Amino acid sequence: MRQNIYLSNISLNEAIDIFLEKIKDFKLGREYVKTYGANGRVTAKPIFAKISSPFYSCSAVDGIATVAKKTFTATDKNPVRLKEGVDYVVIDTGDPIPDEYDCVIMVEDLIWVSQDEVEIIKPAIPWQNIRQIGEDIVEGQLILPQSHRIRPVDIGALIAGGVFEVEVYKKPKVAIIPTGTELVEPGEELKVGDIIEFNSRVFAAQVEEYGGIPTRFDIVRDDFEKLKAAVDKASKEYDIILLNAGSSAGREDYSKKVIETLGEVYIHGIAIKPGKPVILGKVNNKPIVGIPGFPVSAYFIMENIVKKLINFVQGYDIKDKRYIEATLSKRIMSSSKYLEFVRVKLGFIDGKYIAAPIERGAGTTMSLVRADGVLEIPEELEGYEKGTRVNVNILKSEDEIKNTILCIGSHDLILDIAADLLAKRGKFTLSSAHVGSIGGILSLKDRETHFATIHLLDVETGEYNKSYVKRYIPNRKIALIKFVKRIQGLMVKKGNPLEINSLEDIVKKGARFVNRQKGSGTRILLDYELKRLGINPKDIIGYDREEYTHISVAAQIAKGNADAGLGVFSAAKIMDLDFIPIANEEYDIAIPVEYLELEGVKQFLEVINSEEFKNELDKLGGYDYSNLGEIIIIE
Amino acid sequence: MRQNIYLSNISLNEAIDIFLEKIKDFKLGREYVKTYGANGRVTAKPIFAKISSPFYSCSAVDGIATVAKKTFTATDKNPVRLKEGVDYVVIDTGDPIPDEYDCVIMVEDLIWVSQDEVEIIKPAIPWQNIRQIGEDIVEGQLILPQSHRIRPVDIGALIAGGVFEVEVYKKPKVAIIPTGTELVEPGEELKVGDIIEFNSRVFAAQVEEYGGIPTRFDIVRDDFEKLKAAVDKASKEYDIILLNAGSSAGREDYSKKVIETLGEVYIHGIAIKPGKPVILGKVNNKPIVGIPGFPVSAYFIMENIVKKLINFVQGYDIKDKRYIEATLSKRIMSSSKYLEFVRVKLGFIDGKYIAAPIERGAGTTMSLVRADGVLEIPEELEGYEKGTRVNVNILKSEDEIKNTILCIGSHDLILDIAADLLAKRGKFTLSSAHVGSIGGILSLKDRETHFATIHLLDVETGEYNKSYVKRYIPNRKIALIKFVKRIQGLMVKKGNPLEINSLEDIVKKGARFVNRQKGSGTRILLDYELKRLGINPKDIIGYDREEYTHISVAAQIAKGNADAGLGVFSAAKIMDLDFIPIANEEYDIAIPVEYLELEGVKQFLEVINSEEFKNELDKLGGYDYSNLGEIIIIE
Repeated sequence: MRQNIYLSNISLNEAIDIFLEKIKDFKLGREYVKTYGANGRVTAKPIFAKISSPFYSCSAVDGIATVAKKTFTATDKNPVRLKEGVDYVVIDTGDPIPDEYDCVIMVEDLIWVSQDEVEIIKPAIPWQNIRQIGEDIVEGQLILPQSHRIRPVDIGALIAGGVFEVEVYKKPKVAIIPTGTELVEPGEELKVGDIIEFNSRVFAAQVEEYGGIPTRFDIVRDDFEKLKAAVDKASKEYDIILLNAGSSAGREDYSKKVIETLGEVYIHGIAIKPGKPVILGKVNNKPIVGIPGFPVSAYFIMENIVKKLINFVQGYDIKDKRYIEATLSKRIMSSSKYLEFVRVKLGFIDGKYIAAPIERGAGTTMSLVRADGVLEIPEELEGYEKGTRVNVNILKSEDEIKNTILCIGSHDLILDIAADLLAKRGKFTLSSAHVGSIGGILSLKDRETHFATIHLLDVETGEYNKSYVKRYIPNRKIALIKFVKRIQGLMVKKGNPLEINSLEDIVKKGARFVNRQKGSGTRILLDYELKRLGINPKDIIGYDREEYTHISVAAQIAKGNADAGLGVFSAAKIMDLDFIPIANEEYDIAIPVEYLELEGVKQFLEVINSEEFKNELDKLGGYDYSNLGEIIIIE
Repeated sequence: MRQNIYLSNISLNEAIDIFLEKIKDFKLGREYVKTYGANGRVTAKPIFAKISSPFYSCSAVDGIATVAKKTFTATDKNPVRLKEGVDYVVIDTGDPIPDEYDCVIMVEDLIWVSQDEVEIIKPAIPWQNIRQIGEDIVEGQLILPQSHRIRPVDIGALIAGGVFEVEVYKKPKVAIIPTGTELVEPGEELKVGDIIEFNSRVFAAQVEEYGGIPTRFDIVRDDFEKLKAAVDKASKEYDIILLNAGSSAGREDYSKKVIETLGEVYIHGIAIKPGKPVILGKVNNKPIVGIPGFPVSAYFIMENIVKKLINFVQGYDIKDKRYIEATLSKRIMSSSKYLEFVRVKLGFIDGKYIAAPIERGAGTTMSLVRADGVLEIPEELEGYEKGTRVNVNILKSEDEIKNTILCIGSHDLILDIAADLLAKRGKFTLSSAHVGSIGGILSLKDRETHFATIHLLDVETGEYNKSYVKRYIPNRKIALIKFVKRIQGLMVKKGNPLEINSLEDIVKKGARFVNRQKGSGTRILLDYELKRLGINPKDIIGYDREEYTHISVAAQIAKGNADAGLGVFSAAKIMDLDFIPIANEEYDIAIPVEYLELEGVKQFLEVINSEEFKNELDKLGGYDYSNLGEIIIIE
């Protein structure tokens, strides 16, 4: 097995320029649509007013039309009296001004002396409260330029200007072809090795937002002829083709070969991360993009290339990324060979924006769900130091970010539950970045988070969290809010066939153990308990066998590859294992005392102290909330 | 005729709080929709993962799965050789990891020595390039909170988490009822007094963007019973009712009375401008909003109240206004009784944003089309001084604003033509604020515009523009770019029945003249010409009769109320009048010399010097471009 593993490494902007230049002769059709149905469409030519608006002089207010000269002497002391039919007519907003009158006095300025007589106490000036012909729009005036995306307000101006139909570009029809032998449709029975196909569904929603009409093809297996047939058909019936995945250079990546056979490949590989193995080409004179399979890579290709493409074919240059300046909460390294897109959480702390980088893996759809923004690290840089002021492309509004309570620290899914209950109240959002307990404490020290969630066992004292806060954050007065005790226990096969009821039993029964990696909280807790109980780790079979997550420990036991492992209740529950509680891990909130006064923090604390939240904890199981809400001030 | 003219003057935020509190028991229905079709929908409850993703350990790359221990001794000088089937299996991205292996080496790091043997030159570490079970999503984990608007990326995470249907709020059905006896449908024959109904069409597009389903009712005349019947029907079949207009307190404003009869009015009148005469109420337990008729008032009610309402009934608090800090280019006064919304043009000059207020009339749809942002002047302020740093709610992206060339000065519709041709090139936009020639010159002096368009006649010398630039802008080196000569002429009835061929003829033939107001460029030109020709203004019948626009002068002549007036060719053309050229007005561009180097300015100058632009001028008629592009440096 050998394969061509070399892709080009051209810059994103250069790649886009080349691609758009190559496809610039591709033309979308045009059509006339009713103006009232034209929202979001792109004008195919400039649009000029056919009539003036207003097309006659009319009143801008409710009142009376009169002659200004007759009012010139009016004062508080010497009011001028006017008679209906002789000096004035009553007029409503929008009514035409009769030729004999030259001004309108608004109803609020009239003193009624009888049914048909008014007095006024200040002079009117000619033309006051009169909308002149063409005041809004003059016949022949340009209302909209070409290649303009029509907005609701534009519809008003167009109709007011007598334009009831507009010539717009046809929406580009976009074919989305999912390819991959491992892909299955949602709802099909899953076996190991299957991947539920969802990228095409994300693309379809994105294409619609970008202004195209998506059509999703059936999944095509990794088969050159089948893929070729699908692309050929798509290129004849659609304006743009998206092929996902098979854009890399692996054994079964046929995208490039198919495009080369049917048309031309202009670019294969762009210096961005994630997203490098993209293909840009043309088949039957239609632009085609081969999009990588990892969902995060795919997202950035959609946002940075396909969005531009869909707008370009309508003559529209999209420039809608929004940026804010934020302080980076931790050092971040990046290869100087790539433009890298780093997902970040954003908060507004002590008057400045803070950007906390989150997972960088290309496969994690949740990192996109969680991201508040994207930091773009240019090709020429090797990253940024902690504390650097950086520009962040924001995915939320600034108002939303300002109403976000930022939590940096160790993650637990009860944070998501609390976030949901907080969101339900309408105003504030909880955003959490997962960097572990020590990372959270360092962010607190550097004023980069509202609070940190921590679970740090002091192996000298057996006490959780307190000593760490004291040692690491000498510069701030911190409140330690007791949150929950997480029950750590031994996970064993359903029915507990080896009758394991304690750590001692592991040794006694000769059970095959599966451990967590060094440095993890669970490993530290295990070592502390073993020492306390006087158990020698060497006597445990499998002590050296490390897994990296609670759930992979549970999976090994479920598969029968091990008999026991230490972990949290939820992992045992998911893998349908028995669970024997061993010790409690104290998961607490460390927060600067002054932030206790913030409205968002107050609401968050109300949420976690509520019965509703405790009910949710009961439903999950594995949590002890007997001390929840206790506050210890650490100075 | 008397009427209740008193509306309440409650603040916007207070009004919204009261309204939302009053309607908080109104509940939208819920429904299940396919996840792939759920983009833009709002979750009705929190959504948890049904399966983990990945649900088996799998490879994150293309390569080989092997045992890390076997590679520990590998170095450049002592490569480790591995054999397929014995030491490794070939594996593709996403493939499950066989139990006997614990790491994956990527294809880029392999040296192939035969078809089934590889060498590696650095050790692998356990679990490298392996995606653990639940690495992305863990079964039972919260994927989305309730009241969350689903985005494309959320669809991916939901499907990956095994959630193929989601419970969402039904989209609110919004009834839009246009009312007004003066309203006609587009396409009906227009007579004086008619207004083409378009607000409802703008609302429908807005409602769709806010996430509702709009239904537009037929126009209802100003008739209490008919309106009542329409509102009653709407309140039974729809979730939200928008009534437009009739929300003020005029003779024929029945909205309030109808709502009071069928339900309750909570608020009538809010301290905002434009938009004050709004009604907030409830009919048949459905929220109803009476929206003022002026399009700009209506726009701000839609954006500030109806948008919130449509989101509120889905449990969603919309916070998506975007702000930038900008310097105000001119003093702006505001009543301290109102929160005022002022439309502004935005530019980015010498590294800072400039906000130039545009028309404040509530009736001008074009002011909304032209606006780049909205300055919100709080109730407690009486306005801002020129030069104040203000927060502006932006309606475009910052990238778009930074690619905008700002022109402040006197307007001519050829600026719109140039803007269209510039937009067609894709990168830059021309944004122009109309404040007259002197206003433009002052903005140049204060570095608040890229250039100013001016036409100022020096009545001492008969020369245009030069002396004004010299006098008003002593501090900058300015280039005066000759733009066009606008031909001013006498407008007379088609066929020129009085045979008027010069200003002298007006006196000779005893023609009824109609003049422009004092201070207008046309009036200054007329007075200059009369003086030059030795004509006494007193000898002109109607010299004192003033109109405020070219087009209203033309309209008076078309109606037969006058025989002649001075104005531009386009006005004569619109009103189908004959036109006798009298003099040229020189309309030029004043620009700081250093801005001639800006890319956007260069492109603008290319545009106005192009044949395409000159062809457009020919089509319009009335322009002389023989000196176009000449540059005079004024120091």
